[in-house]
Amino acid sequence: MNNYNFCVPTDIRFGKGQVECLKTEIGKYGRKVLLVYGGGSIKKTGLYDKIYEVLKDFDIFELSGIEPNPRLSSVKKGAELCKERGIDVVLAVGGGSTIDASKHIACAAFYDGDPWDLVLDRSKVTNALPIFTVLTICATGSEMNPGAVISNEETKEKLEINHPMLYPTLSVCDPTYLFTLPKMQTAAGTADIISHIFEQYFQPNDGAFITDRLSEAALKTCFKYGPIALSEPDNYEARSNLMWTSSIALNHLFTFGKGGAWSVHPMEHELSAFYDITHGVGLAILTPAWMRYVLSDVTVKRFAMYARNVWDVAKEDDYEAAEEGIRLTEQFFVDMGLPMKLSDLGLDDSQFALMASEAVRTSGLAARSYVKLTAEDVEKIYRSCL
Amino acid sequence: MNNYNFCVPTDIRFGKGQVECLKTEIGKYGRKVLLVYGGGSIKKTGLYDKIYEVLKDFDIFELSGIEPNPRLSSVKKGAELCKERGIDVVLAVGGGSTIDASKHIACAAFYDGDPWDLVLDRSKVTNALPIFTVLTICATGSEMNPGAVISNEETKEKLEINHPMLYPTLSVCDPTYLFTLPKMQTAAGTADIISHIFEQYFQPNDGAFITDRLSEAALKTCFKYGPIALSEPDNYEARSNLMWTSSIALNHLFTFGKGGAWSVHPMEHELSAFYDITHGVGLAILTPAWMRYVLSDVTVKRFAMYARNVWDVAKEDDYEAAEEGIRLTEQFFVDMGLPMKLSDLGLDDSQFALMASEAVRTSGLAARSYVKLTAEDVEKIYRSCL
Repeated sequence: MNNYNFCVPTDIRFGKGQVECLKTEIGKYGRKVLLVYGGGSIKKTGLYDKIYEVLKDFDIFELSGIEPNPRLSSVKKGAELCKERGIDVVLAVGGGSTIDASKHIACAAFYDGDPWDLVLDRSKVTNALPIFTVLTICATGSEMNPGAVISNEETKEKLEINHPMLYPTLSVCDPTYLFTLPKMQTAAGTADIISHIFEQYFQPNDGAFITDRLSEAALKTCFKYGPIALSEPDNYEARSNLMWTSSIALNHLFTFGKGGAWSVHPMEHELSAFYDITHGVGLAILTPAWMRYVLSDVTVKRFAMYARNVWDVAKEDDYEAAEEGIRLTEQFFVDMGLPMKLSDLGLDDSQFALMASEAVRTSGLAARSYVKLTAEDVEKIYRSCL
Repeated sequence: MNNYNFCVPTDIRFGKGQVECLKTEIGKYGRKVLLVYGGGSIKKTGLYDKIYEVLKDFDIFELSGIEPNPRLSSVKKGAELCKERGIDVVLAVGGGSTIDASKHIACAAFYDGDPWDLVLDRSKVTNALPIFTVLTICATGSEMNPGAVISNEETKEKLEINHPMLYPTLSVCDPTYLFTLPKMQTAAGTADIISHIFEQYFQPNDGAFITDRLSEAALKTCFKYGPIALSEPDNYEARSNLMWTSSIALNHLFTFGKGGAWSVHPMEHELSAFYDITHGVGLAILTPAWMRYVLSDVTVKRFAMYARNVWDVAKEDDYEAAEEGIRLTEQFFVDMGLPMKLSDLGLDDSQFALMASEAVRTSGLAARSYVKLTAEDVEKIYRSCL
């Protein structure tokens, strides 16, 4: 196992009705709350009204309309509001995009220049408002980690800001809030969770046995409950298992003692930066293509291990087992109703070369990923998804 | 899954050489350090000198001689020292006993009455000094949780104090410190880790799929690496996997969405309170006996699941699978060189009735454990271990 620092201070309040705790918990930090949310689905579900009921003694200011790939312009608006109104707490009610924007707002509130500076140079993050979250989509794990991915619409960059000050103080994870999720968001969210685990599992370090076994436990959970959540949206057992798996899938537990740069996420970030497609959909399309591209004598043992331990594939030959594992993974995404070709989304190859070079430039793909990939490799992977 | 609150703020510094961080990290809290340790093995291994080297700019006061089942009298001495010297930080260097005593000292430093009051009534815990730990035995998980078990030598009680303020601020977990552990401590420590996972795994809630799978991952890790650590004491992979498994085995991860009172620990606490035996040895003796005693039509499915998922038992009949799983568990402890009878430790049945009633009185055994046990049941289990 590699040396590893692990510190996840977020207070998780998991389960039905936990939103009630916000009154007491936010109250410890002040009365002025910036409520951040997305397109308004929380108004339809009644959660918006519930938040106002729980926080009836607070001064609530609003920033709505956070985009699915949250934009710098929204962050700028939020940071201005925090400064103008003397906000005490940022409360994100939504999914990963809303939470990510809120994290960036929370630190931009203490910064005088362009908030994008903080993305480009994290040493400029010197303070952050307390961040509270109420999770309505399980996918990104942002509710229990210190990262946020922000899109700069001017430069077409989609980059991560990551700082220990950006751990949410407290996250309410109530699985009943997932009951009303559209099928496509359930499917794409599950694909995102799975991809997070893959990014950490498919790394060269073989000595972190415990971490690999924990990761397989989480993958099994996604493969079991993803289809149930799709066919029975109000199945509490399915939603709760997926919700908690989502949080721990990206809180460093599955990379403990390991390391290395991610592979599929940087390739997908270019897709959603250029075409604004749903992140989880892009991941589902790219993942099997990436797996097939990097399968080799060097990687086959780990892919076979994945197939046997997660899918109970019984084939003795490593290549046969690995290929069966990849096929089952792809079939899972198909069964979840996800589009499996970039052409299904209306994309052509006109931007592939540029996207590939950007993916390599802005990530560790060429230097530190499981199988190092050049821009040429990435372009080939994009092309195999047409 | 049951509702669950999860918040583990301890900063884990895992791996070789991490002790160096203490200078910077303790320095954030002050210069006066109470160094707490046990019987002096840290002097033999050189760790004591290393601590003084790293903290050469600090004022170090010492409390040594912490007992394997840490005693209230030691806590009293430590708390007095903190008050007299104006200690800023308590630094525990050792295993669970040293850390547990340090936690109790850290909160007793702010309490004017008998520190035992804090054990009996946790609402009296109002503050605690920052607790730092350097782990030299992996077993109790105390380095990453807010609990401490203290023995009151006058009343022969062994009870837990548990409070969010008692999470260590930072724990150094360097697997190389385990290289010099005596075989018996490696074996007993591994039994303790395994028992912690069992206590959470064998509970009636079947809906926490992710938690059960994570627990099985940790059990597999113990069963794989326990024997390796025993036969190759300086095997870094074995020591590191056991060390991290030990920390997460008792940081609430394996009880997330579940709950219920523990079974074997309360029975063992009486053994070590009455006879001062090694906690892990007592657990190894009691565990298979308890398993056989509670195996029934109600529990057989979970025991069979354990056997199949952890030990790859292929038997189709649930009872056959369950019994094979129990047999393999017992054989594992035998192979680890642990005594498997109370009579091997020189105990007779003279105190069984009293111990059994104490076990039930001071725990949730009769009300909230996996299979509810009366004092009569507990006495029968003790008796089956003679």
